[in-house]
Amino acid sequence: MDYFKESLILHKRLKGKIRIVPKMDVRTTDELSLVYSPGVAAPCQEIARDPDAVWDYTIKSNTVAIVSDGSAVLGLGNIGAHAAIPVMEGKAMLFKRFANIDAFPICLDTQDTEKIIETIRMIAPVFGGINLEDIASPRCFEIEERLQDLGIPVFHDDQHGTAIVTLAALINAAKVAGKSLARLRVVINGAGAAGIAIARLLRCQDMDTDQCIPVKEVIVCDTRGIIHRDRDDLNDAKRRLLAFTNHNNRKGSLRDALKDADVFIGVSVGNLLTADDIRIMAERPIIFAMANPIPEIMPDEAKKGGAVVVGTGRSDLPNQVNNVLGFPGIFRGALDARARRITPSMKLAAAFAIADCVKEPRPDYVIPATLEEQVEWRVARAVKEAALKDPKAR
Amino acid sequence: MDYFKESLILHKRLKGKIRIVPKMDVRTTDELSLVYSPGVAAPCQEIARDPDAVWDYTIKSNTVAIVSDGSAVLGLGNIGAHAAIPVMEGKAMLFKRFANIDAFPICLDTQDTEKIIETIRMIAPVFGGINLEDIASPRCFEIEERLQDLGIPVFHDDQHGTAIVTLAALINAAKVAGKSLARLRVVINGAGAAGIAIARLLRCQDMDTDQCIPVKEVIVCDTRGIIHRDRDDLNDAKRRLLAFTNHNNRKGSLRDALKDADVFIGVSVGNLLTADDIRIMAERPIIFAMANPIPEIMPDEAKKGGAVVVGTGRSDLPNQVNNVLGFPGIFRGALDARARRITPSMKLAAAFAIADCVKEPRPDYVIPATLEEQVEWRVARAVKEAALKDPKAR
Repeated sequence: MDYFKESLILHKRLKGKIRIVPKMDVRTTDELSLVYSPGVAAPCQEIARDPDAVWDYTIKSNTVAIVSDGSAVLGLGNIGAHAAIPVMEGKAMLFKRFANIDAFPICLDTQDTEKIIETIRMIAPVFGGINLEDIASPRCFEIEERLQDLGIPVFHDDQHGTAIVTLAALINAAKVAGKSLARLRVVINGAGAAGIAIARLLRCQDMDTDQCIPVKEVIVCDTRGIIHRDRDDLNDAKRRLLAFTNHNNRKGSLRDALKDADVFIGVSVGNLLTADDIRIMAERPIIFAMANPIPEIMPDEAKKGGAVVVGTGRSDLPNQVNNVLGFPGIFRGALDARARRITPSMKLAAAFAIADCVKEPRPDYVIPATLEEQVEWRVARAVKEAALKDPKAR
Repeated sequence: MDYFKESLILHKRLKGKIRIVPKMDVRTTDELSLVYSPGVAAPCQEIARDPDAVWDYTIKSNTVAIVSDGSAVLGLGNIGAHAAIPVMEGKAMLFKRFANIDAFPICLDTQDTEKIIETIRMIAPVFGGINLEDIASPRCFEIEERLQDLGIPVFHDDQHGTAIVTLAALINAAKVAGKSLARLRVVINGAGAAGIAIARLLRCQDMDTDQCIPVKEVIVCDTRGIIHRDRDDLNDAKRRLLAFTNHNNRKGSLRDALKDADVFIGVSVGNLLTADDIRIMAERPIIFAMANPIPEIMPDEAKKGGAVVVGTGRSDLPNQVNNVLGFPGIFRGALDARARRITPSMKLAAAFAIADCVKEPRPDYVIPATLEEQVEWRVARAVKEAALKDPKAR
């Protein structure tokens, strides 16, 4: 199937992919008087009296805003708010399909950090959570961080969704490769939103050590090679990585980084590596080449170099590392716990819940398939439990 | 039925009155690839290339934001953003029920004019229209006025919706009373959003005289009586009324204003008038006593004073002047014409379309019933036609 051609036809026919539907009919004057004037005054007054009642009487408890500024959409880059709408509508479909969440796309006519933050604060009352989507790095970090006081979860899926699903895949890949997580040396190529979030999660940043065992070493590379202390071209986000990555201050190219590494995680661009690059890694290496639509290295080529597990972002290859395994259940769990934020322990719970869905990991099956049943609901339950236990989520 | 008690139960059971539903299932990998990555890139790129394509490939062409700051909700006053949500959800139901429009509630955590304007500009890309709702006067005037350049209709329903439906009722009431519109002397009690908008529409403000015949005289009263040139306590919105109302600079109380008036329009508070007050009006007076839930005068009392037509805002009395006759069809017509704003000629077209739905006006039937079939679709057609003819709508 030519997805691009067919998708264009489909979008034109549907004129957008979601609709808003009343939960009950309004056929009689009585029904009108209950859902609207005068009866609607009763829930309004109840909420005016007790602000918490908004969770009981309105859509808030099941509604998430998918907020984008259109600055980093898929692999298309900065295409702007209008052009980003089809992606956000698609995401809303997935929220519904996988977690029965009502999600609405909010595409912002600005790419200014302050205005984005301000607008999200302004529109928050109706929503039980905010999914930040396709917002460029490093702006995305500040926006998310500064909104953690909003009282509802604000979660940048391109960062944490990707990191959580990657960790889930890595947990099972390590089993397959006979390696312990705590001893893994990991190379991440790509220091944007996803790469930085993966590094943080693998190194248990913001987490108590009794919840989380960090991998032994992470080295992050960008287009100029290894990120190390002596580079003077690093933005703040990359510089902060150095507190918990590259402890020996290794320098050089991506290939230099790969020497003796156990894991390669690519969130960069396609066709970067060959079997030769894999051969210089440690024995039985693990490869997650997640550039879309063309991975950093194709699975066949990686296996030629000795890779024991290879995952990509593609649905037509084994081990698809796909955010849809994460965000629906994560928000479902957060909403059900009425969490005020999505904490590190909730993220970790999500990763382990996803990994647990694969009962017997094999080289070609370290992560559940995208449309596998029950994944999101197991994630939701784990995230909710973690939230209820975590004082930081209250 | 105890609407208040039942409504509370209903709202708690439903947990909000609308949901968001995908227009198609996502069951297979192929479907996922069409509605989301990778296929979704095609409509995104199409819109990036041609911004107008957003109307073809996304929900924009059928989606309206219902925006409120919660500052003037029903008769409840300034109850805030959260407490306003049930009203906005109810309105979204009506948009769907009567015009098949997807409307989403946006309740703003601010009551600052500048922030409201800014936020609406920021979130506009997804929407084909903005319905301002329950925003206090005089702030509502400035917000609406300054957003007329947004490129999509921005329409404050409490102003114009009310004015349009009132004019519709008045057109037919004048027929019943055997009076000509052009000779009517009208007293409006209440100088908030609705009262001012009614005065403007009845006096054909912003309109060419060949489209619109103004009523002969309008006098507006507020809680201090007649609004006249020598008062020094008027805000800007009230002062601007004087350009087209109270030409003889009459002074005094509401009762003074009523002397020899043909029409009383109340958008104020209940139980203001008695049959005696109606007796001092001109012969065969017309009364629209629209305060909710208690009208300025009950129909029986008004008729005792000689009123020939009496309308109220209540569904349990004849001649309910209800905005729901207006806004769904008005937005439907505007969206179908892809209008950039809702112009005076479109408002006028809506009023006459509503009035035309009543083939033979009688004292107790000058305006269609709220749930009467086809009203909104006739309004939509009339508004669309007016929009297509009006250069100001392009």
